[in-house]
Amino acid sequence: MSSLRRRIIEEGRSLGGGILKVDGIINHRVDAGVMRECGDLFATQFAHTKPDLVLTAEISGIAPALMTASNLGCNVVYARKKKPVTMPGEPYIAHAPSHTKGGVTPLIVSREFLKAGERVLIIDDFLASGQTIKGLIDLIDQAGAELVGIGALVEKSFEGGRALLAERGVPIYSVVQITRLAEDVIELAPEEGEA
Amino acid sequence: MSSLRRRIIEEGRSLGGGILKVDGIINHRVDAGVMRECGDLFATQFAHTKPDLVLTAEISGIAPALMTASNLGCNVVYARKKKPVTMPGEPYIAHAPSHTKGGVTPLIVSREFLKAGERVLIIDDFLASGQTIKGLIDLIDQAGAELVGIGALVEKSFEGGRALLAERGVPIYSVVQITRLAEDVIELAPEEGEA
Repeated sequence: MSSLRRRIIEEGRSLGGGILKVDGIINHRVDAGVMRECGDLFATQFAHTKPDLVLTAEISGIAPALMTASNLGCNVVYARKKKPVTMPGEPYIAHAPSHTKGGVTPLIVSREFLKAGERVLIIDDFLASGQTIKGLIDLIDQAGAELVGIGALVEKSFEGGRALLAERGVPIYSVVQITRLAEDVIELAPEEGEA
Repeated sequence: MSSLRRRIIEEGRSLGGGILKVDGIINHRVDAGVMRECGDLFATQFAHTKPDLVLTAEISGIAPALMTASNLGCNVVYARKKKPVTMPGEPYIAHAPSHTKGGVTPLIVSREFLKAGERVLIIDDFLASGQTIKGLIDLIDQAGAELVGIGALVEKSFEGGRALLAERGVPIYSVVQITRLAEDVIELAPEEGEA
């Protein structure tokens, strides 16, 4: 069993409204050992796709993306939500509607760091409705780069994101798949290899 | 010479107003190899301080903090700028005036993840005026935890942050020290061991 799965079973909490509290593992306190193991899993799953870079979205995607890139020997680019003063010219911009926060989140990548023809692996913390990852794919398309795979730490498979992304025909892999969240209930899909 | 130093010499750009463009290495595209090496350097420098956790601030501190924590076998906690829906109760809150962005940035840490008596190593991307790190120390003090060391990827030594933080009497280490930034001019302090 992956450490992430074990930790979610032990500590994850369903707060209702489809919100999973994993901020002791992933997105406030980050367990470096869990992240390293997930980076290894992603690298094993996606090495054959030969990515030139790993693309993610700030903030919580950075840790798993970095551990994956470290393993594969490539760079991470994280889409910014605001254009920093150091970013020149007109960047690529996409927009992702936010399910948990409401509103629309911009995803901004400098033209310097996403180039036509580059092979791009997307790694993010969550795959839920798929809207954030769809926004990242939009950036890849704008740049004329090539999407080669999609990985997430936690998939909420009941939100349909995988179906939305499947049309791109690239491998999709999530470390932990959650099939149902209700008040105080977290149901996980069996892990690959489990009975 | 550290890879970070080499990359800053090769690619860093001084944009004027004390702003250093390193977004191809640190804070938009992240070079995973450089970060891993910096994590090794921090771990070597601070292993004797026996930290229980590495504290940083989102967003750009996450990568070096994670690589350090991975090496030292501990967790990262990154202070949030906004209180997420998953954060219960009244968190610890400090405020850091932002030099480059203007205004004041909140630094928020849940009481769940910073406990009295814990030994805390701060790792951030920049040590400039020291205000962000001072805010992180304020959070440590509020929690009754113990600051054991401070590390930064890049120190702008002309901004005086080190003097502000020195009163705490803990080791301070930066991978690269910049002594002067002017339009198109980046001056670095000699690396330890250099003539």
